[in-house]
Amino acid sequence: MAQNVGIVASECYFPQTYVSQADMENFDGIPSGKYQIGLGQKNMAYVGPQEDINSMMLSALTRLMENYDLDYKDIGRLEVGTESIVDKSKSHKTTLMSLFQESGNSDVLGITNINACYGGTAALFNTVDWMSSPSWDGRYGVVLAGDIAVYERGPARPTGGAGVVALLIGPDAPLVLEPIRSSHFEDAYDFYKPVLTSEYPAVDGPLSNTCYLRALDNCYQGFTRKFKERFGQDFNVFGEGETARACLFHHPYEKLVQKSFGRVLYNDVKAGVTVDPAFEALAEFKDVPVDESYANRALEKAFATAAKPAYGEKVAPFTYAGQNLGNSYTGSLYFALLSLIANSATEDFTNDRVLMFSYGSGLASTMFSVKVEGDLTKQRETCNLFDRLDNQRVKSTPEEYTEALLQRENYYHKHDFEFAEPTTQIFNGAYRLTSVDSMGRRNYARQFSNTPKRAFSTSSARGLIRMVLRR
Amino acid sequence: MAQNVGIVASECYFPQTYVSQADMENFDGIPSGKYQIGLGQKNMAYVGPQEDINSMMLSALTRLMENYDLDYKDIGRLEVGTESIVDKSKSHKTTLMSLFQESGNSDVLGITNINACYGGTAALFNTVDWMSSPSWDGRYGVVLAGDIAVYERGPARPTGGAGVVALLIGPDAPLVLEPIRSSHFEDAYDFYKPVLTSEYPAVDGPLSNTCYLRALDNCYQGFTRKFKERFGQDFNVFGEGETARACLFHHPYEKLVQKSFGRVLYNDVKAGVTVDPAFEALAEFKDVPVDESYANRALEKAFATAAKPAYGEKVAPFTYAGQNLGNSYTGSLYFALLSLIANSATEDFTNDRVLMFSYGSGLASTMFSVKVEGDLTKQRETCNLFDRLDNQRVKSTPEEYTEALLQRENYYHKHDFEFAEPTTQIFNGAYRLTSVDSMGRRNYARQFSNTPKRAFSTSSARGLIRMVLRR
Repeated sequence: MAQNVGIVASECYFPQTYVSQADMENFDGIPSGKYQIGLGQKNMAYVGPQEDINSMMLSALTRLMENYDLDYKDIGRLEVGTESIVDKSKSHKTTLMSLFQESGNSDVLGITNINACYGGTAALFNTVDWMSSPSWDGRYGVVLAGDIAVYERGPARPTGGAGVVALLIGPDAPLVLEPIRSSHFEDAYDFYKPVLTSEYPAVDGPLSNTCYLRALDNCYQGFTRKFKERFGQDFNVFGEGETARACLFHHPYEKLVQKSFGRVLYNDVKAGVTVDPAFEALAEFKDVPVDESYANRALEKAFATAAKPAYGEKVAPFTYAGQNLGNSYTGSLYFALLSLIANSATEDFTNDRVLMFSYGSGLASTMFSVKVEGDLTKQRETCNLFDRLDNQRVKSTPEEYTEALLQRENYYHKHDFEFAEPTTQIFNGAYRLTSVDSMGRRNYARQFSNTPKRAFSTSSARGLIRMVLRR
Repeated sequence: MAQNVGIVASECYFPQTYVSQADMENFDGIPSGKYQIGLGQKNMAYVGPQEDINSMMLSALTRLMENYDLDYKDIGRLEVGTESIVDKSKSHKTTLMSLFQESGNSDVLGITNINACYGGTAALFNTVDWMSSPSWDGRYGVVLAGDIAVYERGPARPTGGAGVVALLIGPDAPLVLEPIRSSHFEDAYDFYKPVLTSEYPAVDGPLSNTCYLRALDNCYQGFTRKFKERFGQDFNVFGEGETARACLFHHPYEKLVQKSFGRVLYNDVKAGVTVDPAFEALAEFKDVPVDESYANRALEKAFATAAKPAYGEKVAPFTYAGQNLGNSYTGSLYFALLSLIANSATEDFTNDRVLMFSYGSGLASTMFSVKVEGDLTKQRETCNLFDRLDNQRVKSTPEEYTEALLQRENYYHKHDFEFAEPTTQIFNGAYRLTSVDSMGRRNYARQFSNTPKRAFSTSSARGLIRMVLRR
């Protein structure tokens, strides 16, 4: 059984293409700032029909394995969290086994975890517990969490996004999962996917926000209680107990993360643990019935405003990937963690605690914590997140984005087609969907050809996929 | 961290309705015995459109909780394995949370595990590992594994079935999971569900059999190796080492289980561990290349025949539920375990080892072992499996079965309908689907009304769901 189990390496894959929210506002003919400030979003990643969730996971896993010189034989578990289903029975994990074939290692536990944006967290917990139990066989675990988030045309469309995070789980990790988990599960229809032929979800926006915040209340209250039971210390974010240096939230759009952090302050005020005189005026909201508090705009604004200085320090720097990729569903929370790792260039997080809130509609949610117990330099430099987000992507027009989504509508659930021409809109070294045969079997290929006009040349870039397959 | 973690209680739910394979042979106009001997099946459970996988899991969980007088507050994890998807995002687990509502317990980890018939095994491993790790919070885990297996009209149709197994996982269990797991995962399209609007799978029958047997080879060879490494003893089924009293297999149909057991003998002969002179003649097959061995009918027959006496002792008694329910996909292997528990009325399994082989197309497979370390009487009497299978079900005609499947085709993936009239074909106390609204939200209700003409009266039967809700 392993000790201090956590994240020993991390990587990610996101599409080469994105659209800017400023352009989307203009395209949708709505007031400037509605998406940029109202949602708090900057850019939105998207993929055309030549990428699906399997190809994106193949790309993410390949990046992790190659950039850390890992041997497929050393992986004893590979587990996926996603809600981007392309087959109701065959798990994404089995498609990824094609990468293991040459190594001869087929003894790899783990399948796909399904519940909206929560699946990655389930995969992470399962892998950490396996490694911390007598069932562990001494090898690494890998967790892949990510999705393609697309919405039908309308107000939810700018809350899309795409991306996959790949985490290598091992003992004596620089990012250790602490043993406290506080969950809230409930039977809700806030966001779900009942139309099996469509990539688009059914969304009850107001209900989803309430569900998210109610889940946050329950998880946070449970977390502080369990923390005290386990460690004998008070835990809070805005008072004088043990605390978290960073608070990471599932990130559908940044404005909800702002609200969530305000809601943490609301909980601390209700618990009577705040000591800062700046929060004294908030006491007037303590008597608002909890059920009414979710839709109380004055309350929401008062707490978000009061929490703002702390937000700039504990939350905002880690929303960078979320703001620039959009929602990657199961990947979203872990892109916040990658953003924290990226921030370690200018800040030392050693011995800091990171509070994590995972939420998946339907609903499943857990709050847990990660302790930084080692150096993050290797992970930061290898992933090279900020540079990749800022300098290596290609900006599309809203028209191109709209056309890509129309094409996805055409191809999703369609069989018997082939993409003879490789797409130009893909990172060098990434996988693409090449065909779906008449029986619905999907084929993938890795694309190495450069497309000079649009693609960023990655051959000499630090931390990127090597040009030659080692196998 | 808990010790000796395993199955402390077990229950199941299966439909009240079934069709006999003898009748199906007649209905399909094929030679008598083709389904009964060719497939080795006796009866096939099925459900009409008023039951779906969620309602069946609600029924199974309710049986477990009520028959063992469990409090929903004492459950810290509830995890589902299934491939019967009705929503691509919202997990079945969240629907089950409705049963927890009155208890106030929402802190329940676990979601849905997806990969064909393997999801129940993933859920079981995850729950056992959680309980054996520092993350465990001292409460029970529950695993639900089951499916509705239906096939379009044709040769695969008689291999359908339905059922859900509910397992309560806890420490110091009478059925302890040993820490050895040997897996084989591979990227295959032997059985999968690429047509999202259909309940029916795409099946490549011959490939599926080969995949199953190749997975068995790999898992068994890995299991014997790991057993030796961990316990310092040889393990085999047909030789002189440590062994298993019972060998349970995923059971698509009983004939494949026969072939599988023959394949275990093939592996023991190849490994040179058999000592019984009866197996000496089998040595001639040792030189058949492995790749050719899967389709070699003479080889298959020779080993299945030679293994037959042991089959009658180590396998056949535990195929009873599988033969009488048909394939319940993720539930199938665990119905074999329930059959073993049911056999404990006439046989003492104390200190015996049970070898388990879980297989899910796509493909995912693991061999592991369970040690009987306690009395099974309570589980046997509570589940009352044989009596329920033999005396409490209602036999339908092939015409009624065919009509039910046509109705399922009509309602699957349809929204905006209501079943105003409760179905008569459901066990008293079971849940049914009452409506799917225009937004695709599903509603369920528990049905207590008896239907004297068809339903078996369960009010005084031992081990059945109590008539009055305790909550």
